[in-house]
Amino acid sequence: MARKAKAAKESLTTMTEMVLPNDTNTLGNLMGGRLMYFMDIAAAIAAQKHSNRIVVTASVDNVSFRHPIKLGNVVTIKAQVTRAFNSSMEVHLEVWAEDIPAQTKHKTNEAFYTFVAVDQTGRPIDVPEVIPETEEEKRLYESAIHRRELRLILSGRMQIQDATELKELLSKNLYPTAE
Amino acid sequence: MARKAKAAKESLTTMTEMVLPNDTNTLGNLMGGRLMYFMDIAAAIAAQKHSNRIVVTASVDNVSFRHPIKLGNVVTIKAQVTRAFNSSMEVHLEVWAEDIPAQTKHKTNEAFYTFVAVDQTGRPIDVPEVIPETEEEKRLYESAIHRRELRLILSGRMQIQDATELKELLSKNLYPTAE
Amino acid sequence: MARKAKAAKESLTTMTEMVLPNDTNTLGNLMGGRLMYFMDIAAAIAAQKHSNRIVVTASVDNVSFRHPIKLGNVVTIKAQVTRAFNSSMEVHLEVWAEDIPAQTKHKTNEAFYTFVAVDQTGRPIDVPEVIPETEEEKRLYESAIHRRELRLILSGRMQIQDATELKELLSKNLYPTAE
Amino acid sequence: MARKAKAAKESLTTMTEMVLPNDTNTLGNLMGGRLMYFMDIAAAIAAQKHSNRIVVTASVDNVSFRHPIKLGNVVTIKAQVTRAFNSSMEVHLEVWAEDIPAQTKHKTNEAFYTFVAVDQTGRPIDVPEVIPETEEEKRLYESAIHRRELRLILSGRMQIQDATELKELLSKNLYPTAE
Amino acid sequence: MARKAKAAKESLTTMTEMVLPNDTNTLGNLMGGRLMYFMDIAAAIAAQKHSNRIVVTASVDNVSFRHPIKLGNVVTIKAQVTRAFNSSMEVHLEVWAEDIPAQTKHKTNEAFYTFVAVDQTGRPIDVPEVIPETEEEKRLYESAIHRRELRLILSGRMQIQDATELKELLSKNLYPTAE
Amino acid sequence: MARKAKAAKESLTTMTEMVLPNDTNTLGNLMGGRLMYFMDIAAAIAAQKHSNRIVVTASVDNVSFRHPIKLGNVVTIKAQVTRAFNSSMEVHLEVWAEDIPAQTKHKTNEAFYTFVAVDQTGRPIDVPEVIPETEEEKRLYESAIHRRELRLILSGRMQIQDATELKELLSKNLYPTAE
Repeated sequence: MARKAKAAKESLTTMTEMVLPNDTNTLGNLMGGRLMYFMDIAAAIAAQKHSNRIVVTASVDNVSFRHPIKLGNVVTIKAQVTRAFNSSMEVHLEVWAEDIPAQTKHKTNEAFYTFVAVDQTGRPIDVPEVIPETEEEKRLYESAIHRRELRLILSGRMQIQDATELKELLSKNLYPTAE
Repeated sequence: MARKAKAAKESLTTMTEMVLPNDTNTLGNLMGGRLMYFMDIAAAIAAQKHSNRIVVTASVDNVSFRHPIKLGNVVTIKAQVTRAFNSSMEVHLEVWAEDIPAQTKHKTNEAFYTFVAVDQTGRPIDVPEVIPETEEEKRLYESAIHRRELRLILSGRMQIQDATELKELLSKNLYPTAE
Repeated sequence: MARKAKAAKESLTTMTEMVLPNDTNTLGNLMGGRLMYFMDIAAAIAAQKHSNRIVVTASVDNVSFRHPIKLGNVVTIKAQVTRAFNSSMEVHLEVWAEDIPAQTKHKTNEAFYTFVAVDQTGRPIDVPEVIPETEEEKRLYESAIHRRELRLILSGRMQIQDATELKELLSKNLYPTAE
Repeated sequence: MARKAKAAKESLTTMTEMVLPNDTNTLGNLMGGRLMYFMDIAAAIAAQKHSNRIVVTASVDNVSFRHPIKLGNVVTIKAQVTRAFNSSMEVHLEVWAEDIPAQTKHKTNEAFYTFVAVDQTGRPIDVPEVIPETEEEKRLYESAIHRRELRLILSGRMQIQDATELKELLSKNLYPTAE
Repeated sequence: MARKAKAAKESLTTMTEMVLPNDTNTLGNLMGGRLMYFMDIAAAIAAQKHSNRIVVTASVDNVSFRHPIKLGNVVTIKAQVTRAFNSSMEVHLEVWAEDIPAQTKHKTNEAFYTFVAVDQTGRPIDVPEVIPETEEEKRLYESAIHRRELRLILSGRMQIQDATELKELLSKNLYPTAE
Repeated sequence: MARKAKAAKESLTTMTEMVLPNDTNTLGNLMGGRLMYFMDIAAAIAAQKHSNRIVVTASVDNVSFRHPIKLGNVVTIKAQVTRAFNSSMEVHLEVWAEDIPAQTKHKTNEAFYTFVAVDQTGRPIDVPEVIPETEEEKRLYESAIHRRELRLILSGRMQIQDATELKELLSKNLYPTAE
């Protein structure tokens, strides 16, 4: 029997948070770990929406922090599932920070989190396939397989056999970053 | 004038946390984002110890979550600076989870966070060089330069010129992972 | 000089939260006060987006809680400014609770919060007018003036002069409620 | 069999909180939603004391915020049940904010929260009647029935039949407010 | 010029807290350290009320924890200044835990915290004397001087010169405890 | 059958925390109660490590706070079991505060917490004996019995029979304090 499939956009999750004092370091900037905590919850909700299952974080790909986010800023996180592999789902996240009184808004981060759907006993369980519809969704769907390979290589679960492929892999701009 | 240098071990930071109810998901497991928050603080303290400066998170390399950590478990995080590049420092983190009444303890995660030392206005400022002393510290010091290249490639700030080098780079087991 | 005007939809804010253990009472249900805290932040962000100012909560109209929201549920809050009166803005909020694994989703609350825009010293400052565009936005814009009168009466700052008007006022279904 | 009755004062609950950094906005003022969270807990305890049951928030009547409460201020909340209707209880709340070093103290808010007593499965269960003793308790007891009607009208569960009654209702100063 | 004096009861502070999930250990009991945190804030407010100054915790005398306090219990803390010594104030605390649905209430703890009043730069500053009025207040006022001596001995700032005095001191039942 | 015994050092626990805004009072100093909360968790983990049981706080001996700890400081807590008595364990704690950019580090507190090991129903259960190895561990092991007597006297569970012993007891410098 064919696995069920769902459109990527059905998992779209928008989270908005205001940066409060306890989220900040001594410079008054949002701490990186606090932002990764918010991102984890947003991504978990997106993965839940796709799978209608309990989900657990499996991995987080490289994240860079280039723009300081200040106390009182509004952080908007968009999370959407890009592709599913059996029980695992890759979630793409984009983060914007906005100083509303100053009328400035920057895209500060872009990241990929991977989740696994589990049953009540914590065992992995298959999830629906993802149907990408927009150009952006298709691009993320296609490149997901390469990010997955890189993830397996980086975590020591896959051997590198062919430099050519790897070169191609990394030349694909797998991780478009915030300006 | 030569930059000051400090032994790697001077930055060693040990953090211990007990997993409390609000740290857990509906399965009673520590949420991945909450662990990354603890790791960010442990790593920031290690980077502060090395640089004696205010530090900000610059990036986090791939992190995998393979072992569930349960409510009431004790989490121990060890963080130590591996190498410095001008104003940036790579910090190596190891995480263990312990169910003390059950007498089980697992290494659950291993990760690399990068921090930048800044002055009071937030501008980058040079930090001391790192002197690796043990075999493990030397291995991490040597491989840091390759993780740095990969980080630059993954964040789009470096072009891939030579597949041979890259292959070598990834075959070096840059990211030893928890069993 | 005419005051600036902005479309109502420019203030639309979507907040998503997962109900964590510390948000719940001994029945495992989200506490009402915790939900009102989330709603206050979502509404404050909407009022900030409309005014590009620091805003402070001025009042909250009647809120009913009819559906229990459970631990692990995902709460989605939509907040949008309906109308501005000098320095004050009325914000309309709708709240949905979703048990994603069970595939149930209910609209649980609907509320109106009022905010005042202030300068850095805390003094009220005028905000742009609101341009309602959709039918729903127009309906909320029109009825805002009556909710404002009722708010003034209920807080003792306006006297009741005419029963007919009041009757009319309350027969207008000012507070459409969640099913 | 007659329902048990308890004196109103048996439910009196006094809560004292110090305003901490994370409770405040960028002006250093207590956020309205955070105060409503404290009020909800104080009112829930008062309703528990009256009913000796688990209680859940059913509704909150209009609340105005007229005085900023600053970081470091001490907030005192007094909550007491005014009247019971089957399984529901109305709780009257008064809030004072005190800047102790400056020796200033203001009554900042007055509000009515309604709670429903429930059994372990969450089903409503009857509570004792309230015996008002002081003049103030009697006044709040009498007016409780009118606030209840208004609450039902505002939440769409009661139709307006007679403007005269409603006018009378609203002229009774149901919501005495803080100076 | 004579120092100002204030009645002990002017500093009376009542704090009420509900035990939430994150306050508890794996047995579902309030953690001792969390209770000491609540007590510190209640005592600090009492000391502020007496001195109208910023206050800092100087010491905590022996505290015993004999009765478990459960998730969902209501904790009531009463704090009142017993006596002042130049810039320092001793605060007496009593703690009750109540399982309201089960209609049980126990006095669980009794403790003494000492605070120092400071100016904006953190330097100690004299506070008013305490006027004890009730029998209980007088008993606590008289014994305060002996608890102070013991505190100085225990912290190594006073030498023991005379065993007779010390014996007398400890036979005075300085620390009446919860039943 | 002889009780099992474990070396004191097996319980050593190191906790590191960064002082965040919500941990501080209006002077920007760590609140005493917040520090006692961190210490309680560190000590509970040490007692768990010794007993491999669930533990509950039984008492806290006198604690003095002599050095302010500032926002952004790093607090290091070392906790180790000194001696066991049936089901109870005394834990010795040392606290250092470090302003890393200023390169200052002070020992700010030294304290003794007592824990009881319990089974899943909360009943006390015997724990292994402690084997002290270093000079410092032996000194703490020997003096533990006297601190225990004083604890029992102070909590009213032991009568004072002999002033000579008591004098001796208190002249033993039971509570070495931070400089």
